[in-house]
Amino acid sequence: MRSKGFEGMACSVAAVMGAIGDRWGMLVMRDLLLGLSRYEDLRHSTGITNTTLSDRLKMLEENELIERRLYQSRPDRFEYRPTAKGRDIGLVMQAMVQIGDRWNSMGVAGPPIKFVDKLTGRGVKLITVDQETAEPVAAQDVGVQPGSGADDLMIWRLTRSSN
Amino acid sequence: MRSKGFEGMACSVAAVMGAIGDRWGMLVMRDLLLGLSRYEDLRHSTGITNTTLSDRLKMLEENELIERRLYQSRPDRFEYRPTAKGRDIGLVMQAMVQIGDRWNSMGVAGPPIKFVDKLTGRGVKLITVDQETAEPVAAQDVGVQPGSGADDLMIWRLTRSSN
Repeated sequence: MRSKGFEGMACSVAAVMGAIGDRWGMLVMRDLLLGLSRYEDLRHSTGITNTTLSDRLKMLEENELIERRLYQSRPDRFEYRPTAKGRDIGLVMQAMVQIGDRWNSMGVAGPPIKFVDKLTGRGVKLITVDQETAEPVAAQDVGVQPGSGADDLMIWRLTRSSN
Repeated sequence: MRSKGFEGMACSVAAVMGAIGDRWGMLVMRDLLLGLSRYEDLRHSTGITNTTLSDRLKMLEENELIERRLYQSRPDRFEYRPTAKGRDIGLVMQAMVQIGDRWNSMGVAGPPIKFVDKLTGRGVKLITVDQETAEPVAAQDVGVQPGSGADDLMIWRLTRSSN
């Protein structure tokens, strides 16, 4: 479950998915971003087996998304916190919540979780804006281009696509 | 690699990760969203083995993120296109590109891929805004609350977190 095979791939999607690992890694990140920090709480929240949970915590730590800190000795107990890099995953989580709610694939009455402005308590959402002017850009006008770090494969993908 | 164990989990993050499946599923979605559609192109782009690629395409189709269409007979050849639901994954991809670029974990000179406004050619980015007024909300002010569809476990998570 390590990011083997993703090194050197000039693609941020591959890099981020490599760091998260898999669905279990993402669910652990979700819980840590929601503020859970203790192993037993993560166990209870996700229902993941000990083996899988330990492995994913180790992987997320190796990938520098989380930090482990001793909070009790004899027996040693650790808590886990997202790093600055890990807190970035919040944007991916927000995107997932936004589209998951649109799909309503959980068959529930409404959204299970709401992103809000803590100052006003009002709901928030992600929108695409011009990087400089901050003017909103409509979804259908958003496109992709090779960036300055694009490798041959990325340029091939984007050229091939325009056929 | 099916979404087993994720059914009934009242969480959009789990639902979306369940639909994508894993890193390979996400890379296939990336390529289809970039405009690739043919099996051999997906093979070339991702370097995934035939077994894994076939499995992920089948899974993405079962999860209604992509559609398969016959474009040639004898031998039968299919092309794959994102559905409306699948195009929603573009938001997750955009979030991944945005944070992957910030991490610059690929060790490349610049971003491999750029999201742009097709009308102006200028770079775009995701920001968080108030759902109604569309006023920008600073990252540090974004928080989470249980929504109307929150189950007991989600409420527990968010209560536990405020400790």
